[in-house]
Amino acid sequence: MRVPTLLGRLFSTLPGRAESDTRKAEALCRALLSERGEAAGTARAREALDAYESLNDAGRARLFDALARNFAPDPERVAKTAEAYRRDPSASNQIRLQAAVEAPRQELFRRLNMAPGGTAVLVAMRQQLLAGLPQHPEWAAFDADLAHLLRSWFNRGFLVLERIDWRTSAIVLEKLIRYEAVHEIKGWPDLHRRLEADRRCFAFFHPALPDEPLIFIEVALTTSMTCRVQPLLDVTAPISDPRKARCAMFYSITNCLEGLRGISFGNFLIKQVAEELRRELPQLRTFATLSPIPGLRRWLRGQKVAGLERLERPGWQPARKPDSLEALLMPLCADYLLHAKRSDEPLDPVARFHLGNGARLERINWLGDTSPSAIESSAGIMANYVYRLADVEHNHELFVNEHRVIASREVERLARERPTEQPAAAEAKA
Amino acid sequence: MRVPTLLGRLFSTLPGRAESDTRKAEALCRALLSERGEAAGTARAREALDAYESLNDAGRARLFDALARNFAPDPERVAKTAEAYRRDPSASNQIRLQAAVEAPRQELFRRLNMAPGGTAVLVAMRQQLLAGLPQHPEWAAFDADLAHLLRSWFNRGFLVLERIDWRTSAIVLEKLIRYEAVHEIKGWPDLHRRLEADRRCFAFFHPALPDEPLIFIEVALTTSMTCRVQPLLDVTAPISDPRKARCAMFYSITNCLEGLRGISFGNFLIKQVAEELRRELPQLRTFATLSPIPGLRRWLRGQKVAGLERLERPGWQPARKPDSLEALLMPLCADYLLHAKRSDEPLDPVARFHLGNGARLERINWLGDTSPSAIESSAGIMANYVYRLADVEHNHELFVNEHRVIASREVERLARERPTEQPAAAEAKA
Amino acid sequence: MRVPTLLGRLFSTLPGRAESDTRKAEALCRALLSERGEAAGTARAREALDAYESLNDAGRARLFDALARNFAPDPERVAKTAEAYRRDPSASNQIRLQAAVEAPRQELFRRLNMAPGGTAVLVAMRQQLLAGLPQHPEWAAFDADLAHLLRSWFNRGFLVLERIDWRTSAIVLEKLIRYEAVHEIKGWPDLHRRLEADRRCFAFFHPALPDEPLIFIEVALTTSMTCRVQPLLDVTAPISDPRKARCAMFYSITNCLEGLRGISFGNFLIKQVAEELRRELPQLRTFATLSPIPGLRRWLRGQKVAGLERLERPGWQPARKPDSLEALLMPLCADYLLHAKRSDEPLDPVARFHLGNGARLERINWLGDTSPSAIESSAGIMANYVYRLADVEHNHELFVNEHRVIASREVERLARERPTEQPAAAEAKA
Amino acid sequence: MRVPTLLGRLFSTLPGRAESDTRKAEALCRALLSERGEAAGTARAREALDAYESLNDAGRARLFDALARNFAPDPERVAKTAEAYRRDPSASNQIRLQAAVEAPRQELFRRLNMAPGGTAVLVAMRQQLLAGLPQHPEWAAFDADLAHLLRSWFNRGFLVLERIDWRTSAIVLEKLIRYEAVHEIKGWPDLHRRLEADRRCFAFFHPALPDEPLIFIEVALTTSMTCRVQPLLDVTAPISDPRKARCAMFYSITNCLEGLRGISFGNFLIKQVAEELRRELPQLRTFATLSPIPGLRRWLRGQKVAGLERLERPGWQPARKPDSLEALLMPLCADYLLHAKRSDEPLDPVARFHLGNGARLERINWLGDTSPSAIESSAGIMANYVYRLADVEHNHELFVNEHRVIASREVERLARERPTEQPAAAEAKA
Repeated sequence: MRVPTLLGRLFSTLPGRAESDTRKAEALCRALLSERGEAAGTARAREALDAYESLNDAGRARLFDALARNFAPDPERVAKTAEAYRRDPSASNQIRLQAAVEAPRQELFRRLNMAPGGTAVLVAMRQQLLAGLPQHPEWAAFDADLAHLLRSWFNRGFLVLERIDWRTSAIVLEKLIRYEAVHEIKGWPDLHRRLEADRRCFAFFHPALPDEPLIFIEVALTTSMTCRVQPLLDVTAPISDPRKARCAMFYSITNCLEGLRGISFGNFLIKQVAEELRRELPQLRTFATLSPIPGLRRWLRGQKVAGLERLERPGWQPARKPDSLEALLMPLCADYLLHAKRSDEPLDPVARFHLGNGARLERINWLGDTSPSAIESSAGIMANYVYRLADVEHNHELFVNEHRVIASREVERLARERPTEQPAAAEAKA
Repeated sequence: MRVPTLLGRLFSTLPGRAESDTRKAEALCRALLSERGEAAGTARAREALDAYESLNDAGRARLFDALARNFAPDPERVAKTAEAYRRDPSASNQIRLQAAVEAPRQELFRRLNMAPGGTAVLVAMRQQLLAGLPQHPEWAAFDADLAHLLRSWFNRGFLVLERIDWRTSAIVLEKLIRYEAVHEIKGWPDLHRRLEADRRCFAFFHPALPDEPLIFIEVALTTSMTCRVQPLLDVTAPISDPRKARCAMFYSITNCLEGLRGISFGNFLIKQVAEELRRELPQLRTFATLSPIPGLRRWLRGQKVAGLERLERPGWQPARKPDSLEALLMPLCADYLLHAKRSDEPLDPVARFHLGNGARLERINWLGDTSPSAIESSAGIMANYVYRLADVEHNHELFVNEHRVIASREVERLARERPTEQPAAAEAKA
Repeated sequence: MRVPTLLGRLFSTLPGRAESDTRKAEALCRALLSERGEAAGTARAREALDAYESLNDAGRARLFDALARNFAPDPERVAKTAEAYRRDPSASNQIRLQAAVEAPRQELFRRLNMAPGGTAVLVAMRQQLLAGLPQHPEWAAFDADLAHLLRSWFNRGFLVLERIDWRTSAIVLEKLIRYEAVHEIKGWPDLHRRLEADRRCFAFFHPALPDEPLIFIEVALTTSMTCRVQPLLDVTAPISDPRKARCAMFYSITNCLEGLRGISFGNFLIKQVAEELRRELPQLRTFATLSPIPGLRRWLRGQKVAGLERLERPGWQPARKPDSLEALLMPLCADYLLHAKRSDEPLDPVARFHLGNGARLERINWLGDTSPSAIESSAGIMANYVYRLADVEHNHELFVNEHRVIASREVERLARERPTEQPAAAEAKA
Repeated sequence: MRVPTLLGRLFSTLPGRAESDTRKAEALCRALLSERGEAAGTARAREALDAYESLNDAGRARLFDALARNFAPDPERVAKTAEAYRRDPSASNQIRLQAAVEAPRQELFRRLNMAPGGTAVLVAMRQQLLAGLPQHPEWAAFDADLAHLLRSWFNRGFLVLERIDWRTSAIVLEKLIRYEAVHEIKGWPDLHRRLEADRRCFAFFHPALPDEPLIFIEVALTTSMTCRVQPLLDVTAPISDPRKARCAMFYSITNCLEGLRGISFGNFLIKQVAEELRRELPQLRTFATLSPIPGLRRWLRGQKVAGLERLERPGWQPARKPDSLEALLMPLCADYLLHAKRSDEPLDPVARFHLGNGARLERINWLGDTSPSAIESSAGIMANYVYRLADVEHNHELFVNEHRVIASREVERLARERPTEQPAAAEAKA
């Protein structure tokens, strides 16, 4: 079965004929929902999906309004069944309560999903819903309902890990180029280099979206833990022998479908990929990332430390010592990763992700990524997080229960070297 | 990915070491649930599944008790959030309400499902749960929670229709032999005959259970609407040319997994198979069933009609006229199918299924099935239901809204010929 | 692409209308051959194949006569080009010579092969040809031409090794049941047992015959070298854990297609299967056969040794000592395997095959196979041949160049214990 | 099984250590050939292939010399067996004769083919052989032997037709870009456009070379017979609805593997693709090519016709009338295609191919291809050849037996309008 691509459907160019089209789409949704059982087969579901897809953005927004307003649980019925359950938490009272509390749009989504290609439309619908959510906070419960269903349907148990290589179909490969979010893939030759014998790429797929990678990870097989990303991205780099590799460097991980935001696959992916690699290449010793530190410079701007103002000069570039800021920035970066927090968790989102997965912060690397965007966000510094499968569960528990950041002695030592903040007065004097 | 067979797991023969094993399984379930996010990967889920599977029947029953009792929604929290929602049905109040109302075991099931083979274990778990439900009505909400999730996961949109033939793997084919519920398959040669060039067989599969047909249907390609099933079941019958067929006779449809009881696939299957066949063999004119009438004789026993007592004599067999009961039974059968009801729906379960799908009762056939069990349940009479795809939706609506049984004039005429019931006194006189 | 089964085509039941049908078939063969290049596409080839297949056995025999007589190389042209080549072995003279020497039927076979299903018909044609060859020695060159082509087409490089298990299609599995030539497979349950977790089965396939195993081998995974075959054939035997196995016992190997007689696949199969197994189960230590000794009793009948006459008594059965012939027969059997020859090679065909492959005769086993046919042919004794991959090439060279039978000391010792032959006079006295 | 790409192997960059490497390779070839039966498995074959592949170009040429010289049939043995066959053309004499005449290198090739990847190496070997053949006419018989075997192995009956689209693997798609010989594919976006919904692309594959298309054809689905190729090659052209197409325009056909030169697949491909398309899109009415006329301008240079000299002016471009050469060139082109011959066959190679396949020359098109190379070779004129499946066999026979060019009346009329040649004297006067 082949499923139309999501993206083509997202932003319809057909003009919706004003409100009548939206009313028609809503009516089809109601008809689908009122249909007893699955009796009409999947034809009705397809009609409703078609009506939705033929709406323009404004029409869809109106439909979302209607679904948010009119397909919610009935408050009185909720209150009545809840009170009955409170008095007698029997099985039948629980069943009645749950029926009252489930929003009717949940059943609507399930019926829409029955049509061929339905899953793809629902994922795309959520993408559009999320795009409008900031302007429409009243859609939040609608979004919660859809997210709840998608989270259940995209359960890890239903996902299939597939290796991506040069034998993969072009329809999938072009999506890697399109979606890659960490280190841009600059066309087919760049992609080809990333799929050579000294690289690995894996993705999760869902059976209902066979041409859509949900998340993918790029791995370089190297002899030692890599500290700089530019050599990995060099299309002309010689291809090394994977049997001589000792390290698997995870240098890029990308979530593909915005419509699945908040449903996390990354932790599963990293761990299963590590197991696959260990099976294929038993000589591998280290599984580590080469990761960006996206929040570093924003945080630095809040630090009152002499010398940091040089960073903000136009055209500043990191360089090798002695004429560089390395000695100043590296301790600050270590401090940032170890101690900057947002309600008990690391402030840096990438640190939060890997440390939450049970990885350990192993090293930070000056001149790790010298691309303009990396200099802009992290002064070009990158981090290595190491996944030791035997430790991740324990690390994770320390992280969750004691809010501890597991890091190497080297990083901890670095952090202790950071300069203390200067009082505002001192700054004024300068 | 290969999944262990369900059946092998169902009834563990390992002795559970009393209650401690159950307590261990429950503790693993709690640990899995308390784990924040998906951090531990799928290892914990696999442990919990293993603990469950190593329990014997008594141990599982104890675990079901615990899951029914301890993993239900908290009544006070339910009442509080419901009241908040009643006062202000805002998005955030709805989200809080739904979080409170969902039983924690739902999340437990979702996490168990993450492990390889998890879906199969959950389906088998429900089979065992259903087996014990009559003795344990307190498990009803637990069952409702599990059924709710399975219904969502086995949504039509995720099922794959596959043709079954002699090129299908033995692991699937042996399941047809095992599961066939309408006309027993007597070994491999019988199965082979049912998969020859003049037959078709289709099944729905779920990607997480690749070797498990969920439901399958057997079709004979014939020149006219078949009235007797024995020729279809004859292993030595000559194979006819499918290109000369005009009718597709659906002569057997079987739901395979008891653990999915109540989740109906049959309607979808019949309609998609009719479409597939029309595509493959455009010359087909009629799509009809040759169906049992399982409730006829039970109903006849309640009819006060002279002559019916002959049916109950030991060794009674239907035969050709004049020495038979045909003239008496056929009108009664028509009356049964058209007018015997159970709260507005046909009393006969097979009639209820096909008429509810929008089929039309076309004909009833004396000597349709002369096997002992068919004589026992339906006096050997069978029914043909016709699926005209253009009519099924309209028929279905008449059936649902007006409780009408759509039938041919011939059957309606037959039903009018049935003898009236005799008052008890008259009977006494005879 | 699906190919009709070979067997169904072999013995046509349609009556050939006498000689005219044969003449028509021959004319179609000539037309196909005269066609310039491949211009008519494959339609002509299909017509010729159909004409051949619609002939009955007598018609085919007449066609074979015609092909043997009329499609051979022209002797005068052969002589002329050969003489030219003798005088000047230039490239152009060689090319002209080879064109003259190739029988035109070779090109005919190649063109017949172009039609869908052509390969299957040619293989079946050779089966029928071989069946008639003893009565028609004049077909020998025709057979040599066809065999030459089939040997080239079924080159090892084009064969695909596939594992056969319970997930294999029924269309292939039923052929194992049909073809098995060593230890009869008694129906589907017997086959299923041979495909359980402690067994392996592999076959070679050719891409043009996707449903036809060419040769298959059955392997039992055991803890030590097996000496008796009946436990392996026991359908009810418990299934052991393959991870605990130390030996792979090859207990049956069957060539499937009579039409490929003389084209040997067995040696390749055994060696590749050994490599596959070593990869899958690195703990395996021994790769050995449990093999019949089909020629033993025929050879024994020529030995003049006292006591052997007891073997010929009706109802003789091998048994355990002391009341058995074990002490007499085992040394004789060792002697037979080591020393009975047919022009430098072992007389026993199974010994010839395995020793020629480079295996070593390791052990002979009293009561190895107690089935009536095994008692009839080998007095129930079986042999173990061991394949040590590191040794097979060296063993093979000794076998080929020095006609040596590589055997264990135990078997060599046994052979030295055989009784000497008695002169005829002594026998007469007895 | 995955096979290394051919191209990577073709021109080894490792320096061959002079003649000793060649001698080693030849010795391995002899060892492989002397090996009795297939006893050593495929290891020896792999060694010999590796030795060949590690040779540089000079080393390979030396090896070819040895194979040409030392692995040919023995002239004396040939003469003897030929004489025996002439005297008595018995089966046994034929068999002996053929054994004597077959060059030993044929058996060598067959044994080399047994190793994994062997077929690919042999195809690449012939590519290199052909490259050196003009300098080494003494390799001709060697080439004939290899070609004979490859023709037999790449028999139509073993080829698999596959549709190529955007779901095809990148490893195959990049080969289309590399091999395309008619209208260059300018990168991935160009390729993608040629695989959209209004296009079809098909290729033949051989099972032993799964990633290597042997030949591929590109088809545009259009509403009428296309006369200009540039719109078909326009990457930005809108995608039309294939269900509205009436014509299938074959606008490019490319043989991929130089090593298979002389083994023709094109005729089979066109005819099977036409059948596939008719099945998929029954509304198609016309199957036609839009073809180059590569030999036109060379032929024109031999015509003594006034005005043609304008063609040779630097920068000449075809244009619309009146200021063009259309009125002069179109009749000459028709004459060229109809009457210019090379030993009874059309002089133009593309005309020879399509007319030989049984197509009909339907139309010639001014400004058909305005690319510089097309102007250079054919003055920008293109031809449409129509394949009517019902006629191709008859047309082919007329072509072969009567040397007739089947053409439309329009083209025949055009040809009659060509100016007569001017005597040289007249020319001199002008």
